[in-house]
Amino acid sequence: MSGRARNLLVAQSGGPTAVINSSLVGVVEEAGHWREIGTVIGAERGIKGVLEESLLDLSAEDAATLAALRYTPSAALGTSRHKLRPGDLDRIVDVFEKYDVGYFCYIGGNDSMDTASRIGALAREKGYDLRVIGIPKTVDNDLVETDHCPGYGSAARFVASTLRDAGLDTEAGASSTPVKIIEIMGRHAGWLTGASALARERPDAAPQLIYLPERPVTVEDIIGDIDRVVRRLGYAVVAVSEGVRDPEGSFLAAVSEAVDAFGHRQLGGVSAYLANRVTEATGLKARFEKPDTMQRASTALISPVDAEEAYEAGRAAVRAVLEGHSGQMVNLIREPGPNYRVRTGLVPLEKVANRERLLPPEFMADPEEGVTEAFLAYARPLIGPPLPPHGRLARHPIRR
Amino acid sequence: MSGRARNLLVAQSGGPTAVINSSLVGVVEEAGHWREIGTVIGAERGIKGVLEESLLDLSAEDAATLAALRYTPSAALGTSRHKLRPGDLDRIVDVFEKYDVGYFCYIGGNDSMDTASRIGALAREKGYDLRVIGIPKTVDNDLVETDHCPGYGSAARFVASTLRDAGLDTEAGASSTPVKIIEIMGRHAGWLTGASALARERPDAAPQLIYLPERPVTVEDIIGDIDRVVRRLGYAVVAVSEGVRDPEGSFLAAVSEAVDAFGHRQLGGVSAYLANRVTEATGLKARFEKPDTMQRASTALISPVDAEEAYEAGRAAVRAVLEGHSGQMVNLIREPGPNYRVRTGLVPLEKVANRERLLPPEFMADPEEGVTEAFLAYARPLIGPPLPPHGRLARHPIRR
Repeated sequence: MSGRARNLLVAQSGGPTAVINSSLVGVVEEAGHWREIGTVIGAERGIKGVLEESLLDLSAEDAATLAALRYTPSAALGTSRHKLRPGDLDRIVDVFEKYDVGYFCYIGGNDSMDTASRIGALAREKGYDLRVIGIPKTVDNDLVETDHCPGYGSAARFVASTLRDAGLDTEAGASSTPVKIIEIMGRHAGWLTGASALARERPDAAPQLIYLPERPVTVEDIIGDIDRVVRRLGYAVVAVSEGVRDPEGSFLAAVSEAVDAFGHRQLGGVSAYLANRVTEATGLKARFEKPDTMQRASTALISPVDAEEAYEAGRAAVRAVLEGHSGQMVNLIREPGPNYRVRTGLVPLEKVANRERLLPPEFMADPEEGVTEAFLAYARPLIGPPLPPHGRLARHPIRR
Repeated sequence: MSGRARNLLVAQSGGPTAVINSSLVGVVEEAGHWREIGTVIGAERGIKGVLEESLLDLSAEDAATLAALRYTPSAALGTSRHKLRPGDLDRIVDVFEKYDVGYFCYIGGNDSMDTASRIGALAREKGYDLRVIGIPKTVDNDLVETDHCPGYGSAARFVASTLRDAGLDTEAGASSTPVKIIEIMGRHAGWLTGASALARERPDAAPQLIYLPERPVTVEDIIGDIDRVVRRLGYAVVAVSEGVRDPEGSFLAAVSEAVDAFGHRQLGGVSAYLANRVTEATGLKARFEKPDTMQRASTALISPVDAEEAYEAGRAAVRAVLEGHSGQMVNLIREPGPNYRVRTGLVPLEKVANRERLLPPEFMADPEEGVTEAFLAYARPLIGPPLPPHGRLARHPIRR
């Protein structure tokens, strides 16, 4: 380590999550301890902020702001989905040089890991001294080479809690509206849709049906499944991935591109589409819920485990650059043993970049189960403490 | 009071809420203290359970179940929207006689208060000794003769928290998707949509636009408003009532009845419709959220104030029948003074039955404000403690 302090630049990329700010605070707070690091510079809107020199002095933020930000969803620096254009990489390295950035921490998904990796490579080529570390985040949980991604646990807690509540609500009102279809994020990977199974605390509890994007299904199959569950239980709560596909590989929602009487295009999502089709085919009244970005931004349902791991991932990134690492992503490694414990490690960015981890076969089951016990054991610790207990009447009938 | 104990029958009606079970537990626990009351009988699925003699012995439920049920959303007895048919009222009084029901507590909205009132009148006509008390519930907050309704505060807390989170999320991702439209329950009354304004903790915070069902508006107006806000702030979060109407009185969502390529009818709700129209007209990418029944059933966002008041309303109903009252609804009366305090009172069922309380003019404002300070002062105490604090960067720019 040379004696001269150099600046650390941090940015947030891709979709926000409930805990991407925890990682940011982890970076800022850890960096504050080390004389090797000068100013922590935050780039606004991901790599765009570097290109546009929209830079903030995060070292000047006060401790109370950072403490609150640690439990504030969304991306405080702003984010973007900027696709790199020719010349961007050169420009980025030039900006880094201008602001004496010696360390670059990029919080993002697999696209961002690719960007980080390319920036690191170009700096090396140019002989510019830069250490680059990626910090994983995504509610989709689709990064390879890590047990799970910060952001996933909180989104999973939201999904589990929402499906549990929806089960109670639908069961109570089953005599008027017996079918409820809830659309879950994750266009390719079913990790979040599968987390809906964490809602179940007893046999036959909601969700009674789970449709993963990895498992092709037809609209007719779904209608048949729902009809069967309603005949048996009196109601059905369905968790469906926004990306569920038919056996030909088309999104089910794609066929729902409709046009209203005035010629306006209608895109309501797969849940609205299925609710309409179920009612049409079976006469059963159906409602849908599309929580959309609520899944990734719920203050009330942040998983404390997730927030803590996100924070530690941020801290680990700073320690990694100080130890001389570069071109790596912080990952989460689950320790073997009966109690859930996680430590951070490092994995080369190229191993993560542009790859996508789908649910493995041993985690998937038919729609009535949705996921296996192995998946539940994997996912349960990530959502934090058990959901608050619900009361349920023992139902002692009165003799007629 | 005669010395002979008679049974108390309780039922839940209409849409579930987050705290309708708190009222149920209030009834069961209070009734347990009084020797004048024999068994507390729960009718399943509202008045349907009486007609079908689907009756449960709630006095036999254990204390732990009741304690947990007090904070469990949805309707533990089940509910229905049964329209009374000829002969139903006679049948109900006969069933009450068969099970020696001397007290009837009906938890519901304005329809249910009408039903309760008619049952009381027929019993009187027949000379059957019955005391009837209504317990208000509705997330719509549209009952007259009460300061507010149990169920509203929790739904309002959900809406406020969700809009605050959506503001952060949309602002962070504004460079890719600047518009977010969130559909709020309440087809005729804007109490719940107005509660979205409780999300605002600083100037220009979300929701930037609020559309109430009481205030007619055209799609073109909404598009123009959104475009203007996005030009000024870079993004717009919109709270729109599911029941928003155009100046001719038609629901905006009604014109969105579309048909897909296969002739299937598409009903995505007004939020999906507006998101499509905004993108079409302005080119701005728009997303929508339809939390639907999540608004009335969120365990994580129960307002403790609401849960407590719902419980006390249940207790007050039991005390009212014991004091000889009948044909009344428990209401909530806000005490004057700087600190929020509420006591229960009684109001004749006929004054409440089949009436609907819309937002009064002094609570409504133009879409950019949505509601007035007077509304905020009214609604704020009902959602319980302030939402957990969020951190926000002070944003010290780095000099170029």
